[in-house]
Formats: sequence, C-alpha cells, structure tokens
Amino acid sequence: MEIAKVHPIYDTIRRRRDVRSEFTGEAIPAATLRRILEAAHCAPSVGLSQPWDFVVVAGAGTRRIFQEHVAAERKCFGDSLPADLATVFKSIKVEGIMESSVGIVVTYDPTRGGPHVLGRHAIDDAGLYSTCLAIQNLWLAATAEQCGVGWVSFYREAFVQQLLELPTEVRPVAWLCVGPVSRFQDTPDLERLRWQQRRPIDEAIHFERW
Amino acid sequence: MEIAKVHPIYDTIRRRRDVRSEFTGEAIPAATLRRILEAAHCAPSVGLSQPWDFVVVAGAGTRRIFQEHVAAERKCFGDSLPADLATVFKSIKVEGIMESSVGIVVTYDPTRGGPHVLGRHAIDDAGLYSTCLAIQNLWLAATAEQCGVGWVSFYREAFVQQLLELPTEVRPVAWLCVGPVSRFQDTPDLERLRWQQRRPIDEAIHFERW
Repeated sequence: MEIAKVHPIYDTIRRRRDVRSEFTGEAIPAATLRRILEAAHCAPSVGLSQPWDFVVVAGAGTRRIFQEHVAAERKCFGDSLPADLATVFKSIKVEGIMESSVGIVVTYDPTRGGPHVLGRHAIDDAGLYSTCLAIQNLWLAATAEQCGVGWVSFYREAFVQQLLELPTEVRPVAWLCVGPVSRFQDTPDLERLRWQQRRPIDEAIHFERW
Repeated sequence: MEIAKVHPIYDTIRRRRDVRSEFTGEAIPAATLRRILEAAHCAPSVGLSQPWDFVVVAGAGTRRIFQEHVAAERKCFGDSLPADLATVFKSIKVEGIMESSVGIVVTYDPTRGGPHVLGRHAIDDAGLYSTCLAIQNLWLAATAEQCGVGWVSFYREAFVQQLLELPTEVRPVAWLCVGPVSRFQDTPDLERLRWQQRRPIDEAIHFERW
C-alpha cells in the first residue's frame, strides 16, 4: 500500500525539508501562524512543564543584526574545515533569515514547573528534549500549511539571548526561519550538494540490544 | 473552520498522548513498526548527521529489569517531594513498560557525522536536538497508527547504557513504551490527576523580543 494512503501524516513527514532557498517572502496569514504555534504548544513535555516560549521576530532590523552574526559564525566554521570540505561548504546556503517571512525563536526555561518537575530528577536535559518536541510539531504543521522552516544554528546562544532580551535563565534552542515556499525540494540540500549522504535505516535499527 | 479540516495532521497532534494505562498489549504488526521507525528516521538533523539509533526491546526479561530500576527511581523522586505533592504523586502511574508491546530506546551518538558536523560548531547540543525531532516524528506516526507512546524518564542514563550494551559514546535519550491502545485520553494524565495545569498559549508567544 502507498504509505501516504495509510495516513496523510506520512506524506507531511516525507515532504518536510530544512528550507534555505525557496522562501517567497509572502506574509504568513495570522490564522496560519496561530495554528502552527498551537501545534507546537500541543507537544508533550516532561511533567507537563511546557518549558518552551516562542518569540516571533518580523522586524527587519533585528533579523539583519542576527544575519550578520550568522555570517561571522559561518566564516568561523568554514575556516575550520580541511580544503576539500571547505570547497563543498562554499556552495551551501546556511540560512534564509531575510528571505523568509518571520523568525520564530524557540526557547527553553529550566525554571518552568518549579523545583519538582515530574520525570526530570534523573535526567536534567529532559526539559530541553520537550522543547525540541514542540519544534518538530511546529515544523510538521508548517509543512502541512505549505510553509517552509529553516533551522539556523550558526549562532552563539549568548548573542541571541541579548538580542531578544531573554531572561537570564532562558536559553534559545532554535532560530527558525518560517514562511511560504515556492516548493519543497525532493532531496535535502546537504545531500543534493554532496555534503552528506543519508544513512540507510537498517543501520539505525537494533533488536533487544545494540 | 474546524482545525482538523485544515489538515489532518492537526487531529493527530491533538490526539497524541503520553500513554501509561491504555496499552492493550497486542503485538505491533511488523509493517506498522517499520513505518513508525521510518517516520522517525525522516526527521531533520543538524548537518544531516542523523545521530539517532533505535533499539527495539521486546524481551520481557530486559523490560522487567528496567522496570525495577524505574520503580527505585520513582521512590527516589517521591521521597524528595513535600507532603502535598507526595500525595498527588502516589496516584500517578509513571510507566507502562510491561503492558506496552515493546520498548523503543532512542539514542544519540555525538560522533556520528565525524568531526565537522555542519551547524554544530557553535551549539554542542544540536545533535541531541535532532534526536528529539526524530522522537516526535515517531510519536505522531504511532498516534496516527492508533499506537500509544509513553516516554519513561525515571532512569539513570548509565543504567540503560549498560543494560542495552550501548557503546560508551552513545547516550540513551528516551525509553518509549509503544503499542496499540484501547483509546487516547482526552486530557493529559498529569492534568486530569491534578499534578499540573496546561499553560495558556498566549503566555508562551512573544513578539519581536521577550
């Protein structure tokens, strides 16, 4: 049976891409943005702590400052590469900050839920994990709405924290470029541009033990 | 417009629960398990590093040993609580390890992708984030297949690492109890049992800065 016929979610999961170049720059309708953020907010969280927040950055000024920071970090990474990888890296676009419609910065607050978060006493990172689950809900909802998401990770957390005036305890987890796209690529950029190949799934599945 | 009519993914996102009590114990058909794992493996990852693995634990022996460890950690958390919270906590089931059909342990390998993972030089946790995105894909696909997922986090990483013979560098991120369920609860357990209330979404959304 064709997998999308089993359930339409499989089609969304397969079409989802980490978008850099296909943003149209059109505005996201307010109701669409709301649905996408509600989807994120529906994610599971350790002890029902919901430790995430969403900062929607539309202003060109803030985005441009962030973009300059990202450009410097891109150079820093590029300079660290051996020559062959550096050549491949040159052709790779790492962000669509200005071309997308908005930035959505997803943050993690470890103090949310107070001192007794159920399920976090043994695993300190569990709240960080919850925040990422919200990000994936957001990403899939956006894909279903024909909006692209591009996760930018060429930045220093302290820079974003200061730029967006986050409280000291709040940590930025992702800067997501979001907006309508002309299309989703069939193949991930990094595979198409020969940075990395996808791993066969059978290598990732183990039974009973490693 | 009814939100599930906008796109069926919203229905899946809203029905998804962190399941403890509703597992039927029936086997997951092999094709279904495969689709769920493929959905996880379709997740985005930093630098296309795909740093996750999935250990499917069906054996009752291994699961029982894990369950005993979880019981000890549950007691440890319970003992740390003030009296009022301890009373509420007593009524809360924290795992469905034996009642579910299998455990799926999702792990993170920080060495995957070699020394030059694109997008990870400034954010060391980015690979851990990718692993969580795979978990949420798995969770939603399972929900669409009428399978429940229950994330157990009352454990010490070193214990699971030893139990499943994970390589030293590989870190367990989640023990997921997975299997067919009789139903999904309308309200999350922790809200229904008055451990925690959900946060209004408008408190979580900020514009331009915090």
